[in-house]
Amino acid sequence: MSEMSDISSLATPKVLAVDPYVPGAQINESGWVKLNTNESPFPPSPMVIEAAQAEVEKATLYPDPPARKLRAQVASHFGVEPTQVIAGNGSDDILNLLIRVFSDGERKAGAMEPSYSLYPVLASANGSAWENVPFEEPFRLPVEAILAGGFNLFFLTCPHAPSGVVFPMAEIEELAERFEGILVVDEAYGDFSGGSVVSLVKRFPKLFVTRTFSKSFGLAGLRVGFGIGSEEVVGLLDRIRDSYNLDRVAQAAGVAALKDWGYYEATIGKTTYIRDFYRREFETMGWKVYPSQANFLFVRPEKVDGEWGPEVAESLFSFLKANKVLVRYFGSHALTRDFLRISIGDEDQMMVLWDTIIEWRSKE
Amino acid sequence: MSEMSDISSLATPKVLAVDPYVPGAQINESGWVKLNTNESPFPPSPMVIEAAQAEVEKATLYPDPPARKLRAQVASHFGVEPTQVIAGNGSDDILNLLIRVFSDGERKAGAMEPSYSLYPVLASANGSAWENVPFEEPFRLPVEAILAGGFNLFFLTCPHAPSGVVFPMAEIEELAERFEGILVVDEAYGDFSGGSVVSLVKRFPKLFVTRTFSKSFGLAGLRVGFGIGSEEVVGLLDRIRDSYNLDRVAQAAGVAALKDWGYYEATIGKTTYIRDFYRREFETMGWKVYPSQANFLFVRPEKVDGEWGPEVAESLFSFLKANKVLVRYFGSHALTRDFLRISIGDEDQMMVLWDTIIEWRSKE
Repeated sequence: MSEMSDISSLATPKVLAVDPYVPGAQINESGWVKLNTNESPFPPSPMVIEAAQAEVEKATLYPDPPARKLRAQVASHFGVEPTQVIAGNGSDDILNLLIRVFSDGERKAGAMEPSYSLYPVLASANGSAWENVPFEEPFRLPVEAILAGGFNLFFLTCPHAPSGVVFPMAEIEELAERFEGILVVDEAYGDFSGGSVVSLVKRFPKLFVTRTFSKSFGLAGLRVGFGIGSEEVVGLLDRIRDSYNLDRVAQAAGVAALKDWGYYEATIGKTTYIRDFYRREFETMGWKVYPSQANFLFVRPEKVDGEWGPEVAESLFSFLKANKVLVRYFGSHALTRDFLRISIGDEDQMMVLWDTIIEWRSKE
Repeated sequence: MSEMSDISSLATPKVLAVDPYVPGAQINESGWVKLNTNESPFPPSPMVIEAAQAEVEKATLYPDPPARKLRAQVASHFGVEPTQVIAGNGSDDILNLLIRVFSDGERKAGAMEPSYSLYPVLASANGSAWENVPFEEPFRLPVEAILAGGFNLFFLTCPHAPSGVVFPMAEIEELAERFEGILVVDEAYGDFSGGSVVSLVKRFPKLFVTRTFSKSFGLAGLRVGFGIGSEEVVGLLDRIRDSYNLDRVAQAAGVAALKDWGYYEATIGKTTYIRDFYRREFETMGWKVYPSQANFLFVRPEKVDGEWGPEVAESLFSFLKANKVLVRYFGSHALTRDFLRISIGDEDQMMVLWDTIIEWRSKE
């Protein structure tokens, strides 16, 4: 035991103080309807599978350190210069670089609360000053509060998670105009909303947009993300990026995915169709649902008698889980504890979900 | 311009001060004999290719965050417990975690100089105090100097790079016995030496061994590395590890590689056979060559008249490059600037190398 505490005493206080991030359960057994981590229910494009499998044959050689083909493909897709793009091992890699470059004990970072709970964990691991900004009204952007916060770095998840709502472009533009630090708009779910603030990056060099192939492109298992901003921000992130952060297969898959954008327009279209269909179904049943522009719905379960609240949400969560339907419950915040976040699955998965919810309603 | 310098002023001083790591050139054109970054000249096991390609089909689902199957397979291969193993996006990922957990502005990290030049870059990006320990005699371990250095964390590359020499196990054992911080033995090239200090980990909970699939397993392009140590060190690294640091394909490839160890014993055997054959060839020609136990040779080029030195090494480096043979030259240190580091290629690549060297000798 003395040897053990001896080892902890060698670790830095900031690492010992970290409350580690808890990812959603990743179940590998079959038989589950997995609607808890916003993966795509549709397979990647056949071109992506082919490109990734072909790249496996070149596994002996190191990948291209800056992932130049992928940066160029992203640049062409979004109408920016390749020098404005960085690629990462998932967008989490890029979020971590942003924390490490633009925040520390004196340079405060922050985000809306609730939003992606990884941000404060990354800040804590870096010993960065951190402040959450609360919503004054549910999921309406408190522009003045963000501006008054003295932030060197601020993360805005848009579409927001877990609500799915999109903040008005005019408000983000106003923030970008007036904010004095680095404003990161995390568009992990951007393809499902159709909108993006990438077009603002030319005007605002301190605006930075992160995106991922994990959701709309169905490549969560390969870890590919990217960021778009000014050349100078990209250059600063590249200073401390791991040279080989992105493997060959991930790079090749990302390039192939963007080349087959038509395929993804179709799967994104299917996803948003199913989302909007079930949003109406939940509303017809009388449940509160935020107007999601992402690939999930944030719904407030109600019993037949109209009762809702944390116990009701937890009851449905547990009933679904007992029936091998996995969704996400965030019980720690007043704005989320009455709700469940349900990833949009394919038609079959959603029917299993729906039938299980109806069964729960009949029993409660 | 004022907008640009405004952005730099938002970055942390430690990131602005980083002198970024420069990886060896990664050339994707065909026609080159690439002997500069210690990749394997032999393809991965067919079982690995098959497993990796099959895993691509599951790309939509997030990978297992702790890479449990890979940890278990590594544990079984090395005769340790799965709780003693961590997996990373290349061993560089794990080196970075070690720096971030066990060093900061007050907790000093260090390594032998010269050795892997990434270590001090990672320390610098973390704002860690750093000190290089020089060799008193070329590539002989100065045990007392390391012990006297007041290090909280020390990296020992063994087999050493770029010399290829192995430090005596008894000296590492003595260090592990007496060192008060975390002693990391970076065995990136360990499979080519046949030896390992993993067996010491049970006795010394502050000893930590890093390994990679990039060299002996021919998987540089997939980014898979791992570390073995005490459960408490692993637990501390896991606190700040990115939950999804290792993608599905990399995890599956690593598991399959260890399961097909017999295949790799054969390719490692071929590599060391070629290495030792060319070591004798160089020595027969009168060149100084360190007794490498890695998959490269560190050789001191000589002209026919016996002249050697930085100009001679640079001359051969340039001549090889002009003839599409890529090796590595480290010109910045007294112990390396007279030498070239040549990765061991297959028989054909080594013959091209050799013929080009003979041609250079005839012209100089």
